[in-house]
Amino acid sequence: MANTVLSAKRFLESHQPGKWSISYTKLDLQKPVPSDIVISRSCVPKPIDCLAREVGLLSDEVELFGKTKAKVQLKIIKRLQAQPDGKYVVVTGITPTPLGEGKSTTTIGLVQALGAHMKLNVFACVRQPSQGPTFGIKGGAAGGGYSQVIPMEEFNLHLTGDIHAITAANNLVAAAVDARIFHESTQSDKALYNRLVPLSGGQRKFSPIQINRLKCSVFITRFARLDMDPSSVTWQRVLDTNDRFLRKITIGQSPTEKGYTREAQFDITVASEIMAVLALTSSLEDMRQRLAKMVVATSRGGQPITTEDLGVSGALAVLMKDAIKPNLMQTLEGTPVFVHAGPFANIAHGNSSILADIIALKLVGPEGFVVTEAGFGADIGMEKFFNIKCRYSGLRPHVVVLVATVRALKMHGGGPTVTAGMPLPKEYIEENLELLEKGCSNMTKQIENAQHFGLPVVVAVNAFKTDTEAELDLVCNMAKAARAFDAVRCSHWAEGGAGALALGQAVQRASEAPSKFKFLYDLELPIADKIRIIAQKIYGADDIELLPEAQHKVELYTKQGFSKLPICMAKTHLSLSHEADKKGVPTGFIVPIRDIRASVGSGFLFPLVGTMPTIPGLPTRPCFYDIDLDPETEQVNGLF
Amino acid sequence: MANTVLSAKRFLESHQPGKWSISYTKLDLQKPVPSDIVISRSCVPKPIDCLAREVGLLSDEVELFGKTKAKVQLKIIKRLQAQPDGKYVVVTGITPTPLGEGKSTTTIGLVQALGAHMKLNVFACVRQPSQGPTFGIKGGAAGGGYSQVIPMEEFNLHLTGDIHAITAANNLVAAAVDARIFHESTQSDKALYNRLVPLSGGQRKFSPIQINRLKCSVFITRFARLDMDPSSVTWQRVLDTNDRFLRKITIGQSPTEKGYTREAQFDITVASEIMAVLALTSSLEDMRQRLAKMVVATSRGGQPITTEDLGVSGALAVLMKDAIKPNLMQTLEGTPVFVHAGPFANIAHGNSSILADIIALKLVGPEGFVVTEAGFGADIGMEKFFNIKCRYSGLRPHVVVLVATVRALKMHGGGPTVTAGMPLPKEYIEENLELLEKGCSNMTKQIENAQHFGLPVVVAVNAFKTDTEAELDLVCNMAKAARAFDAVRCSHWAEGGAGALALGQAVQRASEAPSKFKFLYDLELPIADKIRIIAQKIYGADDIELLPEAQHKVELYTKQGFSKLPICMAKTHLSLSHEADKKGVPTGFIVPIRDIRASVGSGFLFPLVGTMPTIPGLPTRPCFYDIDLDPETEQVNGLF
Repeated sequence: MANTVLSAKRFLESHQPGKWSISYTKLDLQKPVPSDIVISRSCVPKPIDCLAREVGLLSDEVELFGKTKAKVQLKIIKRLQAQPDGKYVVVTGITPTPLGEGKSTTTIGLVQALGAHMKLNVFACVRQPSQGPTFGIKGGAAGGGYSQVIPMEEFNLHLTGDIHAITAANNLVAAAVDARIFHESTQSDKALYNRLVPLSGGQRKFSPIQINRLKCSVFITRFARLDMDPSSVTWQRVLDTNDRFLRKITIGQSPTEKGYTREAQFDITVASEIMAVLALTSSLEDMRQRLAKMVVATSRGGQPITTEDLGVSGALAVLMKDAIKPNLMQTLEGTPVFVHAGPFANIAHGNSSILADIIALKLVGPEGFVVTEAGFGADIGMEKFFNIKCRYSGLRPHVVVLVATVRALKMHGGGPTVTAGMPLPKEYIEENLELLEKGCSNMTKQIENAQHFGLPVVVAVNAFKTDTEAELDLVCNMAKAARAFDAVRCSHWAEGGAGALALGQAVQRASEAPSKFKFLYDLELPIADKIRIIAQKIYGADDIELLPEAQHKVELYTKQGFSKLPICMAKTHLSLSHEADKKGVPTGFIVPIRDIRASVGSGFLFPLVGTMPTIPGLPTRPCFYDIDLDPETEQVNGLF
Repeated sequence: MANTVLSAKRFLESHQPGKWSISYTKLDLQKPVPSDIVISRSCVPKPIDCLAREVGLLSDEVELFGKTKAKVQLKIIKRLQAQPDGKYVVVTGITPTPLGEGKSTTTIGLVQALGAHMKLNVFACVRQPSQGPTFGIKGGAAGGGYSQVIPMEEFNLHLTGDIHAITAANNLVAAAVDARIFHESTQSDKALYNRLVPLSGGQRKFSPIQINRLKCSVFITRFARLDMDPSSVTWQRVLDTNDRFLRKITIGQSPTEKGYTREAQFDITVASEIMAVLALTSSLEDMRQRLAKMVVATSRGGQPITTEDLGVSGALAVLMKDAIKPNLMQTLEGTPVFVHAGPFANIAHGNSSILADIIALKLVGPEGFVVTEAGFGADIGMEKFFNIKCRYSGLRPHVVVLVATVRALKMHGGGPTVTAGMPLPKEYIEENLELLEKGCSNMTKQIENAQHFGLPVVVAVNAFKTDTEAELDLVCNMAKAARAFDAVRCSHWAEGGAGALALGQAVQRASEAPSKFKFLYDLELPIADKIRIIAQKIYGADDIELLPEAQHKVELYTKQGFSKLPICMAKTHLSLSHEADKKGVPTGFIVPIRDIRASVGSGFLFPLVGTMPTIPGLPTRPCFYDIDLDPETEQVNGLF
């Protein structure tokens, strides 16, 4: 008996987080750097169950999905609740060109440096990419060059089905909305009631979901008839496909729907509120509640109609029960990565999941690091990371890494337009210190934006092969002059973790600096005040202007009790202002707020600044022309 | 060296299929029989890697998906190629009521009997159910009572994502069709060409998919311009959701699509041609070819336009690379089940995958059994099983199990209408030998239908608790009088495999009877002749009538070279005739063929007899009202 206790104790001790005993994968660097898919498949990933053990996961906490992916069960949070968290680092960027400046690549390069080169416990937490754009213009999103999550084809396609689960859940709600409107319009109250609460063995029995609803509506009419106004439906259908022809459609045109047509639209799946719920939830119980609170329409009497009113919230939780578990993968150098959730960065908050961060912070332990990436530039993804994600998670970040490139800074200095799929103008290929120096204003402003939250900023200058020494030095010097904690150049794309070693060391030093994290605004403030604070302090606007629809929504949401929610600005990421072509640091502008929407389940209001495309299209020659499978080797070709 | 060879030899010998050493799960039978989900979760499934070992799979042939599901890699076919196949049994049914007569339950009950009770190697191969109806009226489809695939919630929801992969692949094709029509209509030939074959490092380079296409079209115009007629597009979008409002829609109404609107529709995902391809393919190479041959529209010049012409076929193969691997699960009594593919049983052939059957037949070995289920009644699913599935697979079946119920036979004898969701009229609850005897005509005809293919038929009378001894005896006697090999009553729903022991023994005896399997028609016959043979021999029709659209298609497909394909009739399953309300054995009718469609990638023509609904709707009170997740235990409640 004593022996049993002793061995149980020893077992648990050996599973206490401490310094990981982890085997790193050695890179065989090639020049010129091969394509992403060629690099990805040139490395043999460690069996994922082996990596899971190395980072202290118990085998019954892990669900394998093939040999290279696994889901981690949430019960681990309870096992490690007494464990102090690691250091929490967020990677963000200056205002980018449409080509992107390498935030994902820097995130992966940095963890490869902290792990394989500095031998620290470290996790990257990244977003699952939308599959649609992979076949359109964008290609994959697993980092790039020698800083990637592998296998990149598994990362980019299907993963473990989380986005597919969201598609299914989202569209079940949409089908339920239209079917309910249809059935209500063709049946009497009594007939509706009899169908909703059918006789079974001589008795009418309410389901638990109906009993929840009965608590608020005692009369048959209000119970049986939701009376949704079809023109008020805000819930859209989704697909994870770049299908531009679904941007605006008319539904219900089959004779079986008896003329109940209406205009509707499809969004890309990552724009679904359920994706934002997945990213912001902290437990299964919390997710169940958020999935019940989502507002889909307004009744003709002005009441918000929720998924709970439709009776569908339990089914949503069932559809999402596996998606809530973070997905474990690895970097090219064998360090662990959580890939979990990927909400849109404009109409949602653009950050990976809270749950992945919580679990990773426990697993790395107090001396370790968790590096998480926020979408778009610091004015959008980082601001939302702090004001929305950290507010809901209660986690306190230690360091901001701000990714800058010579290319984007030159654009901010007045360089010609940069367009995806077109060759770069010569200003971006040849040395031009004048443009660069001018453009550093954008970096300076974004450093200041991070400092609003009380955190040290390390600037990572993501070097391209056309950048000159003088250019790279200039950026570093300008960053330090703007009171960045440090600024270092990185070459992780070409060299893997070794190329981000200086960055890793700077981040480690910064994490020991005193941190005085604070939010930018108080939730108790009126909606308009919260929006104004973001616009003035982060975007540098003079003021905001609420257009009539937005003014109406401020009143409606205040009446409906949603005014205490944080704000998630839906603004272009291509400028600090609301106009994409205003580069550098625009001044003297007023941000027009066209409309405000409520994402009540995920827990934020999103003011619309301009129109946001919510489903991309396919170009004349989509990426899929190059993608194929080798039936002999089963290898995927042509993904990038 | 000699030792190494010896131990390798021993290892291989120990992995040769023979009698499995398999642990069965003991049932704890309750009365009254609890709900399906309660039974399902009262059994602890064996770890799936353990079951995989028990049935002779090597660990590197198996990809785990959590603890209860696994995918099996196709390379096993090569390893076991010299192994003789087991006995091949197909389960079909008489013409059913709308409630279904228990084919799935009988399939599972039968393998539980053959395995856990008769200690034979046995695999069930079943279809993956569509997720949409699970939340509508139908509920789950994992068998029922004490004859189920477990865990039933995993079986019914997501599984390993195969259907989601089909949704993604199907909709990528749809997006590619409309985007291509749009780009062609807004660009010159030259502009199109320059975009399709962009300059890269000063050169224009064709992708391999484009080179395939160049082999047939040498001029820029024919290369760059597919010239699809928008009104000829037959490729539809799909969702795995019961969304009636998508039955007919208008797409392209956003200003970004510049007025190029058209009418379209969504089907349920299992109706996608890609699902039929998955079910009928025999290898990765074959799937890649089938995915390239799918016809999506006709050009204005009358040429069929394929997925290969769109350049999307390689991407489809990549999206489907994991879906092609059969999914391993288990029955309540611990015997193995492959769950793989689930094509629609009317506009497609309604059978599980060829690959699962091939692998299972090798794994069970010559003394073992593979039991596979064909959708709908014997006039549809079984006919297609033989004429389409067995024709493509080359596999030769040994026994037909025909499921009959007293309820359905009474309906055929003239009993009142049976409607899903409504209480059964008293004729079905009380003894009524007269109705029953009259209705046995349908069973007699379906026995004859199986005999057309030269196989012994075992009738399984699936007993309900309201059936009387005299009724059950009558059915068995009538079946034997119709020259069934045997007819036995079964109670596997209430008793698991023990309740199907007599059936198992009859099937084993029948499998030793001489089999003279033959197809019903020769592929070389003209299209109309093949349709006529099915209508006359299987349905008992006097003749067929080709309506003008069908006549036109016969000519078109003959010209396009598709006339040698087998026939997949899209006919109601609720009658042997084309009219759902004609019960028993209708005579003196002519089957009208409204139209014919081509499913060139999967490899069949499907004549349309009447209109086929291709996406179900949600009723006033869908099943989802009862479904919920317990956040504490993570258990799913309310699925049935």
